[in-house]
Amino acid sequence: MKVVIPFKFFNPKSRLSSILGEKDRKTLAILMLKDVIDVLKRCDCDVTVITPIHIDVDAKIKLDQRTLDDVVNEELKDVPKAVIMSDLPLLNEEVVNRFFETDGDVIIAPGRRCGTNMLLVRKKGFRVSYHYGSFLKHLKIARELSMDVKVFDSFLASVDIDDEGDLLELMIHGKGKRSEEFLRSLGFKVEFEKVPKLVR
Amino acid sequence: MKVVIPFKFFNPKSRLSSILGEKDRKTLAILMLKDVIDVLKRCDCDVTVITPIHIDVDAKIKLDQRTLDDVVNEELKDVPKAVIMSDLPLLNEEVVNRFFETDGDVIIAPGRRCGTNMLLVRKKGFRVSYHYGSFLKHLKIARELSMDVKVFDSFLASVDIDDEGDLLELMIHGKGKRSEEFLRSLGFKVEFEKVPKLVR
Repeated sequence: MKVVIPFKFFNPKSRLSSILGEKDRKTLAILMLKDVIDVLKRCDCDVTVITPIHIDVDAKIKLDQRTLDDVVNEELKDVPKAVIMSDLPLLNEEVVNRFFETDGDVIIAPGRRCGTNMLLVRKKGFRVSYHYGSFLKHLKIARELSMDVKVFDSFLASVDIDDEGDLLELMIHGKGKRSEEFLRSLGFKVEFEKVPKLVR
Repeated sequence: MKVVIPFKFFNPKSRLSSILGEKDRKTLAILMLKDVIDVLKRCDCDVTVITPIHIDVDAKIKLDQRTLDDVVNEELKDVPKAVIMSDLPLLNEEVVNRFFETDGDVIIAPGRRCGTNMLLVRKKGFRVSYHYGSFLKHLKIARELSMDVKVFDSFLASVDIDDEGDLLELMIHGKGKRSEEFLRSLGFKVEFEKVPKLVR
């Protein structure tokens, strides 16, 4: 499967700035990207990272400074293709293979807060619109094009790392991931005395 | 499949008290329970709700005032049995059937914040410990008993309705559910102008 991963290089993960400085946020973003690439490579995917400036990862690099929508719409001229976000460190081979095996013209794995975390398009003509409620927008776009659209049900694919609550999920479910080990190396851990929370 | 649903009748959903009064929280709790029962009935389950006082729903009622752990441990003397929480209104038949089809002695569908939202036990001897990080505790308990434990990956099963962010997920993904229609009747809707949020 051809997979593209759009990567936001500048000021990544800004909603984590209250608990992580910019350097650590950048390191975390790269390690999550590497976690995603590791899984996709083990699923025999042809992986391309689309980024505004060069980064050193085990995948093809395509330099592009346009917006997310422009970049992805260009990619979707060639289908089938999957678009997978770079901040999904909990993905594993089982989830990715189950996703690729789902029938339909357009498959969407939603994230919390109405996001589109993974997208698989098998038919030409679909166009993306990522910001603000993209999950419902993408359902609508597919239906307007009379495409067969499926919602892919996965907790692990739903956890995109955006805020502190998401980091908690990474610590709970991400054992052995590069990004989880990095957080541990910074002193983060989960405190279980009452409602689980992230402490450092 | 035999399924038990523990139901907390008194002061339900207290973390929603900033946006819903006690009467509405109680109504919402009952409607979510009914949403869960509807799905399980369509999956041909034998459903028992365990509650401290009688409630009027389309399932067997077992009155029990003991703690959640005591109630569930008693139930798990008879296996196979599933324990499904009452605040999972996004469940559908596909999720529930996929859950029941998962192999293993103990199957756990995690919720956010380390919860155990659905549990399926096929072997005697497993005991629950629900509070504070139950997902990891249940993995540990199963492994200590040398039971074959599986983590069930579902976004829809992961959304237990606990806080305002969870209500947002119910509004986005719960179209046609009794609980979602109730929230709409109260004037709640999702605003998509920027990051999706719940407004009323």
